[in-house]
Amino acid sequence: MSGTQLLLVAGTHGNEINAPWLLDQWGKNPDLIKARGIGVAKVVGNPAALKVCRRYLDRDLNRCFSSELLNAPTVLDHEVVRARNLLARYGSKGEIPCQIAIDLHSTTSSMGTSLVVYGRRPADLAFASLIQARLGLPVYLHEGDAAQDGFLVESWPCGFVIEIGPVPQGSLQAKIVQQTRLVLEACLEVISRVKAGLDEYPPQLVVHRHLRSLDFPRDVNGIIQACVHPDLQGKDWIPLRLGDPLFLRPDGKVIEFNGDVVVPVFINEAAYVEKRIAMSLTQRELWIVANAWKAALTKVIRC
Amino acid sequence: MSGTQLLLVAGTHGNEINAPWLLDQWGKNPDLIKARGIGVAKVVGNPAALKVCRRYLDRDLNRCFSSELLNAPTVLDHEVVRARNLLARYGSKGEIPCQIAIDLHSTTSSMGTSLVVYGRRPADLAFASLIQARLGLPVYLHEGDAAQDGFLVESWPCGFVIEIGPVPQGSLQAKIVQQTRLVLEACLEVISRVKAGLDEYPPQLVVHRHLRSLDFPRDVNGIIQACVHPDLQGKDWIPLRLGDPLFLRPDGKVIEFNGDVVVPVFINEAAYVEKRIAMSLTQRELWIVANAWKAALTKVIRC
Repeated sequence: MSGTQLLLVAGTHGNEINAPWLLDQWGKNPDLIKARGIGVAKVVGNPAALKVCRRYLDRDLNRCFSSELLNAPTVLDHEVVRARNLLARYGSKGEIPCQIAIDLHSTTSSMGTSLVVYGRRPADLAFASLIQARLGLPVYLHEGDAAQDGFLVESWPCGFVIEIGPVPQGSLQAKIVQQTRLVLEACLEVISRVKAGLDEYPPQLVVHRHLRSLDFPRDVNGIIQACVHPDLQGKDWIPLRLGDPLFLRPDGKVIEFNGDVVVPVFINEAAYVEKRIAMSLTQRELWIVANAWKAALTKVIRC
Repeated sequence: MSGTQLLLVAGTHGNEINAPWLLDQWGKNPDLIKARGIGVAKVVGNPAALKVCRRYLDRDLNRCFSSELLNAPTVLDHEVVRARNLLARYGSKGEIPCQIAIDLHSTTSSMGTSLVVYGRRPADLAFASLIQARLGLPVYLHEGDAAQDGFLVESWPCGFVIEIGPVPQGSLQAKIVQQTRLVLEACLEVISRVKAGLDEYPPQLVVHRHLRSLDFPRDVNGIIQACVHPDLQGKDWIPLRLGDPLFLRPDGKVIEFNGDVVVPVFINEAAYVEKRIAMSLTQRELWIVANAWKAALTKVIRC
C-alpha cells in the first residue's frame, strides 16, 4: 500500500453513536464525504460496546494504549485486547499501516466542535493549526496528567481527538452528525493540501493547555454534595475568574472559584463522574506555529 | 401506620441520576423539602442499576409491573424480582402500605417538567389537574399502547410519572434537580390541601392523549437511516403539521410529516431507540374536571 493512509476511528466509546453512524452511512454512500484521494480506513473502535450502547465493557478503550497495558500479557480485558488488535491491524507497522489517526468522539459537555491534542508532538500541532485556521475551533492540549493516559491517537505517528457536544450518550442528533461531517471534510482537505504542498499555515495556534482537573465536592463516603452551578453549566471555553460560581449545594449555598483566571473544559461530562472529574481547567496560550511543526507534518503525510 | 402514605420512587431507571440524588440529599437534610405532615417513603427504584449507571440490568423495571410478569413464577429477572419486592413492601397491601406512588424520571427529550398519566384513573386525573393548575405543566396521557405496559405507578391506587428534561443520562444538573424539587413540593402541597379539604380544582385539564409512536426510518437490517430533523429536535409539545420536517437523511433528503396535526412528545429520547420509538404523537384535548375524579382523589388521600 502506498500514499497517506488515515485511520478514522468512531465509537471508541460505545455510547457515542453519532460518528459511527456517519461512518456507516459514508460506507454505504461514498459520495457523502469527499475522500480527496486519501486512503481512509474507517473503523468502529469498540463494536461490542457500541452494540450495547455502553462506554466500554471492561475498561475505557481510550485509556488502554499505554505501553504498560499493551505489553502486559496477563491483562486480557476486552478493551486491552481490542487496543492490541487495532495496533496490529492499523498501527504504523500493522497490516494496513496508517500514519494518522483521528478519533471521533462526542461529549455531554458544551464543547462545540473541538480538537484534543495529546502532548506536544510537532505534527499534531501543525495539523491542529491548519484545522483551527480553517474552522476557528478551539484546541485543548492534554498533557502532564498522570491520572489520564493511554489515549488511542498517541499510538500513531500523528493524530488527535475530535470532540463534539453537547449531546446525550446514546442519542443520534442531526446537528452533531453534521458537525462531525464538516470537521472530517476539513481534515481530509487539509491532508490533501499538505500532500500537494499547498498548505497555508496561520502564524499562531491558540491552545488551551491542561492545568488540572476539579472533582465535585464529596462527603466522606465519596457521595457528590453539590452540582455544577447552573451559571457555569454549558460554559465550556469561557474564562472562569476568582469568585465566579462553581458548584451549587442543594441548600442553595454557592461554592465559588478560588484561583487565577482559567478556561474550563469538559464541564460536567457525564462519563467523567466515575473519573472524579467535574471539569478540567486550562490556560489559553498563543503559540507560534514553528517550522519544525510544519516539517514534521509534511514528513508524516508525504511518507 | 395511619394517614396518607406517599411512595416516592427515584432511579427506577439507573441512569436517571438527578432524582435519586435529590432524595438522598433530602434524607440527609429533612428541611430541604417540606413534607407537610405527609408520610413519605423515599425509595430508589433500581439501586443495582443506579450503582452502574445503567437504565436496567435485565429489563426495564418500569415495564415489569404487568400482572403477567408479576405472577410468572419462573421469571426471575432482576427487575421483575425487584418489582415484586417493591409491591410486597410498599404496595397498598404491603408492609408499609402506600396509597399514592410518584415515580421521578428524567429524559433526554426537551419535555420540560411534565406529568405522564397512565390510563384514565379518576384519582390520577384529579391529582394531575391540581398540579397543572398550580404549575401550568403539560400532561401526557399514555393509554392504549399494547407495546408498552407494566408501568410502576399503575400498581398503586393513584400516581403518575414526573418526567423532566432535557438532560443526558448519567448527568447531574442543578437545573434538573431544582425542577424536580419544585414539582415535588407542589405534589406534597396538593396532597396536604386535599387532605385538609382545601382543594381548589381548575375547571379543565389539558391532556395530550397518546395516539401512536413513530419509529426512525430503518433499512432492511434495522439500521436507522435518518435522524430526527434538527428543526424538530427539542420541539416537544409543539404541534406538528402536515409537511413539517420530521427526519433528515445524511444525503440531505427531508422526510416530512404526513398527517393531521398532532403534538409530539419524547422526541429522540435516547432510551427509546431500543424500543423503536423516535417520538410519540398525541392529541391535545380539554377535559372537564369531573366530580367523580375529585371524589376518587379525596377517597385515596383521606383513607
